[in-house]
Amino acid sequence: MQLTHFTDLGLRVLMYLSHPEPHRPPVTISEIAERFDVSRNHLVKVVHFMGQQGWLLTTRGKGGGLALAQAPDAYRLGTLTRILEGATELIDCAEPPCSLRGRCQLKGLLDKALVAFFDVLDEYTLADATASPTHEVIVMLHQWRPQA
Amino acid sequence: MQLTHFTDLGLRVLMYLSHPEPHRPPVTISEIAERFDVSRNHLVKVVHFMGQQGWLLTTRGKGGGLALAQAPDAYRLGTLTRILEGATELIDCAEPPCSLRGRCQLKGLLDKALVAFFDVLDEYTLADATASPTHEVIVMLHQWRPQA
Repeated sequence: MQLTHFTDLGLRVLMYLSHPEPHRPPVTISEIAERFDVSRNHLVKVVHFMGQQGWLLTTRGKGGGLALAQAPDAYRLGTLTRILEGATELIDCAEPPCSLRGRCQLKGLLDKALVAFFDVLDEYTLADATASPTHEVIVMLHQWRPQA
Repeated sequence: MQLTHFTDLGLRVLMYLSHPEPHRPPVTISEIAERFDVSRNHLVKVVHFMGQQGWLLTTRGKGGGLALAQAPDAYRLGTLTRILEGATELIDCAEPPCSLRGRCQLKGLLDKALVAFFDVLDEYTLADATASPTHEVIVMLHQWRPQA
């Protein structure tokens, strides 16, 4: 069982933006791609999606960048994960169509367990996910400059 | 977020075996592959694994087949799912190595949510997953014979 790569990247972006350093240029997608060694193209998609959700403020052009739209403690982790995951189906009942489909008691039980999963995450916010010692690593990543 | 195909198949096999019809030949892997329109080779692997776990009784050769080793209400769904999933990591922190790895508060929160997920499933057994109306569909699948 694994969250999608999309969700993974989305959460990392939000965590990276949770501790902005003062007196530094705005955070860019390229910077995050470099710090986490992940695909810039994938990040573009997830940043666009999170902008549409109103989670991020994005300013374009030279000197532009990304920032959280609200304080980190305003973002509930269950809500973030649920929305980033999209239509979550723990088991694919449709492809190929399962013979038990529509009359399967297992599906309801899995859905109930999934609700419990998101409920636990909703007890926490982005501020919890980036509390110490995560905070210090994020600050260090912000301060890191590639060597010339 | 999705369970692995391996887990999906494993649960379907166990459900199919939960309502054995009397006076019929033993259930075979080929029969299950046909009823669920899934790969026989994938089923062989998961049946072998579940045999090793002591969940299934398998008899080889002509007239051989599969059966549950215990009554359906002896199989807790959380335990089944946890073991079928293997080492569950909701997010791959290792590949590529995440910059926050080892000091990431998010990981602990995700693990906590996963425990809640399995705890809910452990409140139920295979007997619950195959209660009516699932029961009736399984009986129908057992009775179905391919047309000559």
